[in-house]
Order: sequence, then C-alpha cells, then structure tokens
Amino acid sequence: MKERIKAIKEIMAKKKLDGFLVMDEKSIFYLTKAMGANFLIIPREGQNFLYVYSVNYEAVKREAENCVVELIKRGEKITKKAAEKIENLKIRNVGFDTLTAEMFLQLRKLLRGKAKLKHKSELIWELRKVKDKEELELMKKAAEITSIGMRTAYEVLRPGMTEIEVAAEIEYAMRKAGSWGLAFDTIVASGSRSTYPHGWCTDKKIKKGELVVVDIGATYRNYRADMTRTLVAGKPSKKQEKIFNIVKEAQEKAFQSVRSGKKARDVDAVARKIIEDAGYGEYFVHGLGHGVGLEIHEPPTLNSQSKDRLKAGNVVTVEPGIYIVGFGGVRIEDTVLVKRRGAERLTKGPYTLTLS
Amino acid sequence: MKERIKAIKEIMAKKKLDGFLVMDEKSIFYLTKAMGANFLIIPREGQNFLYVYSVNYEAVKREAENCVVELIKRGEKITKKAAEKIENLKIRNVGFDTLTAEMFLQLRKLLRGKAKLKHKSELIWELRKVKDKEELELMKKAAEITSIGMRTAYEVLRPGMTEIEVAAEIEYAMRKAGSWGLAFDTIVASGSRSTYPHGWCTDKKIKKGELVVVDIGATYRNYRADMTRTLVAGKPSKKQEKIFNIVKEAQEKAFQSVRSGKKARDVDAVARKIIEDAGYGEYFVHGLGHGVGLEIHEPPTLNSQSKDRLKAGNVVTVEPGIYIVGFGGVRIEDTVLVKRRGAERLTKGPYTLTLS
Repeated sequence: MKERIKAIKEIMAKKKLDGFLVMDEKSIFYLTKAMGANFLIIPREGQNFLYVYSVNYEAVKREAENCVVELIKRGEKITKKAAEKIENLKIRNVGFDTLTAEMFLQLRKLLRGKAKLKHKSELIWELRKVKDKEELELMKKAAEITSIGMRTAYEVLRPGMTEIEVAAEIEYAMRKAGSWGLAFDTIVASGSRSTYPHGWCTDKKIKKGELVVVDIGATYRNYRADMTRTLVAGKPSKKQEKIFNIVKEAQEKAFQSVRSGKKARDVDAVARKIIEDAGYGEYFVHGLGHGVGLEIHEPPTLNSQSKDRLKAGNVVTVEPGIYIVGFGGVRIEDTVLVKRRGAERLTKGPYTLTLS
Repeated sequence: MKERIKAIKEIMAKKKLDGFLVMDEKSIFYLTKAMGANFLIIPREGQNFLYVYSVNYEAVKREAENCVVELIKRGEKITKKAAEKIENLKIRNVGFDTLTAEMFLQLRKLLRGKAKLKHKSELIWELRKVKDKEELELMKKAAEITSIGMRTAYEVLRPGMTEIEVAAEIEYAMRKAGSWGLAFDTIVASGSRSTYPHGWCTDKKIKKGELVVVDIGATYRNYRADMTRTLVAGKPSKKQEKIFNIVKEAQEKAFQSVRSGKKARDVDAVARKIIEDAGYGEYFVHGLGHGVGLEIHEPPTLNSQSKDRLKAGNVVTVEPGIYIVGFGGVRIEDTVLVKRRGAERLTKGPYTLTLS
C-alpha cells in the first residue's frame, strides 16, 4: 500500500497536481485496503484523508492504512466535505478519477474557482494496470477457482437441463473451491441465445446439439477472473466444429503473440486476421479482450482502436468469438498474465467442443 | 412499455424539455425491454432512437420495442453520436439521467451551445419508483426465491462451517428455486464481522454462539429482492436476545407504519425511536431502508433526511440494525410493497435468532 501511495504522489508531482480526489471504491481499496469508503484526498505531500459515512465507519477505521479516517455525518454532503478539505489543504490543481456530472458541477461551484478540477483517471490506472506480486497471487487463486467451475460445466452439462441449472452447479463448485463471490453474472447461453455475447442465463432448456457459451468468473479477496468455453451437448455438426476450430486457432495464436512491449491492437489483429481469412470477420463483433483485476473490465483494452501497449504484470483476457444469427455463437476466453517474454494462461481448461 | 414512454413524454412536456438522453442501462431496459444498449434519445414527439455497439447489436435489435435501433460503429464515440442526433432532431433543452463528468464536458463542447443539458434523473425515477403489475409479479417471484434461500440458511448453518460454505448452500438453493442471479454479493458475516453492515463473506469459520448476519437477494428477469436475518448457531446469550428483540420490534413497528402517503422519514423515525428508547440509538448507523427494483438500491430512500413520500407501488426495504464493536451486529430486513392501506411483506421468513 505504502509503495502505491508513494507512486501516486510521484506521478502527481510530474503532472503538476497538488492534490488528488479518489472516488472509485476499488481505487480507494487499492490505495488504503479499506472497502466501503466514500472518497480519499491525497495531497502531494503529507497525510491522506479518507471519508466515510457512519454505516461503514467502524469497518473502514479498522482496515484503512496510510490515511486519517474521517466520519461524514448524517445529512452531510460528499461534495461539501471534499470542497472544504481541498480548500483547507490549499490544493489548487486537483486531479480526480471519476465523478458524475452532477457532483462535478456541485464541486466546481463549491470551490468558487479556488481550485481547478482535472479528470485524470489514467493516473491511477497506470498503477492498477500493472499487478504486483501480492495481487498476482490473489488473481491466480481466482483463476484457479474459475477453472474448477469450468471443469464442472463439462462434467454436468446434459441436454434437458436449463441454463440456470447448469449455472447452479458451476457456482456451487466455485464456492466449494473457495470463491468469495462472482466476478460478474454467470453466462450460460444456449442455442440461438449463444449468438448474443452478453447472454447471462435463463430457464431455457438446453437441447441436444445446441451450442452453449459458458462465461464465468470467481473472485478471491476482491480480485477477479474471467473464462469462457463453448460446448455442445451431443455430437457437434460439421459447421460447429469448423467455426470452433477457427476460434480456437485465433485464441491460441493471439495468446502466443502476447508479451510485454506489444501493442494491444496488434494482438487483436492476430486473432482478427485468422477469423477474417476464414471468411467470418464480420461475425467477430467485439474486441479481443480487456484488463481484469479488481474490476472485471478495466484497462488495458485489446481491440483495433486501442492505444495501449502491453506491459509485464498486465492481466488481460484473450477472447475471440464468432456469432452468426441463425447458427449460434462460439467464444473461447482465458485470463492471461503478460510477462517479459510471452504470457501465461491463468485460467486453464479443455479446448474442446464436446463434453468430458 | 408504450405507457412508460408515453408517461415520460408527458413529464417532458411539463418540464419544458424537448428531448431526453437516457444513459442508464436499466432505465433503457425499463423503457425499451432491451439490455446492453448504450443510450436512448427520446424527443418530446415522434420516434425514439436507441444506440448500441456491435457486440450487443443483434440482441438489442431483437428485443427493443418503441424505438429505432442504430449501430455505433467501431471507433465511434457515444458522445459524438449523441450530439449529432440531438442537433439533427433540433432538440434545444435536453434532460439527461446520468453522465460522467468526462462525458458531460465532451457532450457540452460538441453541442456548442445549440442545446442545453439538464440533469433530470428524477424524471425517470418518478416512474421507476412505482412498480406496475408486470413488475410486481417479477419482484414477488424474486422475493419468493430469496425467502427459500433464507430458509436454507436456517437449515444448514452449523458451527464450524465457513461463511463461504453457508453462502454456497444459500445460493445453490436460490438457483434451484429458479433464481436468475444474485441481486448483490451475498453477505454472511459472523462474530466480530457482523458488526460491519456491508460484510460480504469470507473463509472465516463460524463459532458456536456467534451472531451471524445473513443478507441475501435473488433476481428474477432483472428484478431484485433483499432480505436479512440474524442467527446464532447455538444458544444465544441474554444480551444477544435482548438486542435481537429490540431490532425485531423496530422492524415490525416500522413495517406496520408503512402505507401510501406516509413520509419516508417518518417510517425511519418509528424504528429509530424504538432503538433510541432502548438506549442503542448511536448503534443504528444507517438509514431504515431503500427502494428495490431493477437496482438493489434505488429511490425512494427511507432515512431521517429523506424528502420522499411513500406511494402505493413503491417497493422498499425495512431494515433496522444495531451494531456494537466488541459485541456484534443484528439486522432484520424484509422487502416490502407499499399499498394504499398498509403494506405487504414480499420476503417471508422466521423472525428467530435460533436455528430451525
């Protein structure tokens, strides 16, 4: 924690900010170890101040490191408390990570020109994007639990089960393996529903021969993992096998291209080229992947527009897919750690279309 | 859906808005039945326009009602598309529900003074706060599934189990009962952890005689429920029983005071007075409750500062609690439907401290 706060203060100095207002709960956790606080004020030098309403005051007071914890009383407004402290600490140039338009306007008014507000979320993301040793241990654990969930999907999936019933077994297995919760709503999307990349799960019964996209993630001490496999309950058709193999090759080759220093959009391009060359380019309707950490979607971004360059310590997903209306969808995804040379898959599981 | 859009347009006319920009995914779902879209533009008269990136384009096109669906192409910015359409439709006064400071500033710049942006989220909340018949059926189902989860907690909880193991059984039972997912991260907070109202669950073992706060919710077709009970595995102490009975009385009396027309802060006051009179006022560290629907926390708010007046069709939680460092926490919560005369508990379960 201490090093993280120190790093933030160094970047602030470089960017000529004499204060930073952190509103994002996960960023506050990242910097102080406390969950449930409302905002953190980091002056370039000296003590940091963490503000929290009474509901979480005792918990935050117990957990928070590297800051003074202040209570926000019933009826007191966050923006008012923040403006007072900014003035009090004589901060003139204050960066912030995230504010709603409403809060931004309130705060600007309260500051009466005495301090300038600058949106600088990238400042914290520069740090959060690169996972340290402690974080990687937790992410590996989350990925391990997620892989157990996926193995369960291969074991239990049978025609006639509902999507929700499959989700029940996966989530139960992840809890039994020590999951602290879900990284996102479990997706079990079968048949025509597999065509829709964000399909969660419903009471639809899975039919023999249908494509089933299973996209799951466990958390471990607030860190997340993300993993997708596509299965068929029964004998796959020739076309299903063909599309599956294209996606599998795209995922494998893209994974092999991941290493520190690589442009994120070039990794996207590796997968996209394979799918385009096979004639399915228009059906790969999303980017190749995204960062994972305390959030399920975070920087860096792996798509054709990305300006990110991968760095050792990034944890990202590699998840090409092909989605054809009237046929269905296929997606294969792993959570992957970027290393100096190459990369390491954190989620592990079968790359097969058929059940075990 | 049609009535909801019609109602919005009527309120817009009253508020002298000639356009509304909806960014909140749940509000878009509420108005169009489509999930996964990026923004919706509602002119005071005529056709509505729903914008979505390619990843969810096919799903949204299939589901969306009462609007024209437009694709946002790769690399195109949401703010740019929105500004173009606002100008194109000659909208001058545009309300919006939610924007980040960053998007607000971008959009304002792009509009070059040709349209005024006004934060008006309350306009949609006026509608979403009052659940219609269709919504109430889904909420009752979510509450029913949640009650089954709670019954499971009473059945399975034994000293020596970890909090996560208890959560595993509750969540599995809710899935088996037809849950579409979790309304929020399951809380099983035992011993000293019960002191912290938002305590999720960990690998801590539950000890005999410890207080265990169980706060859970299932979803059903995107609607949520919220329910808390506090249990002791083993024989409760005199003090545990005393505190439990105070909270139980506060919850019961507050529930009995709920009806259409009542000020939300007066319902909070009923529970608060009972807890204060018993000498524990300072330990009731949060408001009495909140609205529930497509979000787990939404308007109206039930606390001492609330300006809301309850209305038939509101669905709210009633959840007093007492949290004492060194002793633990007790909270009892039901999801409750506000009616013309009185109220109805949607979640149902034992009001006992001991296991079944």
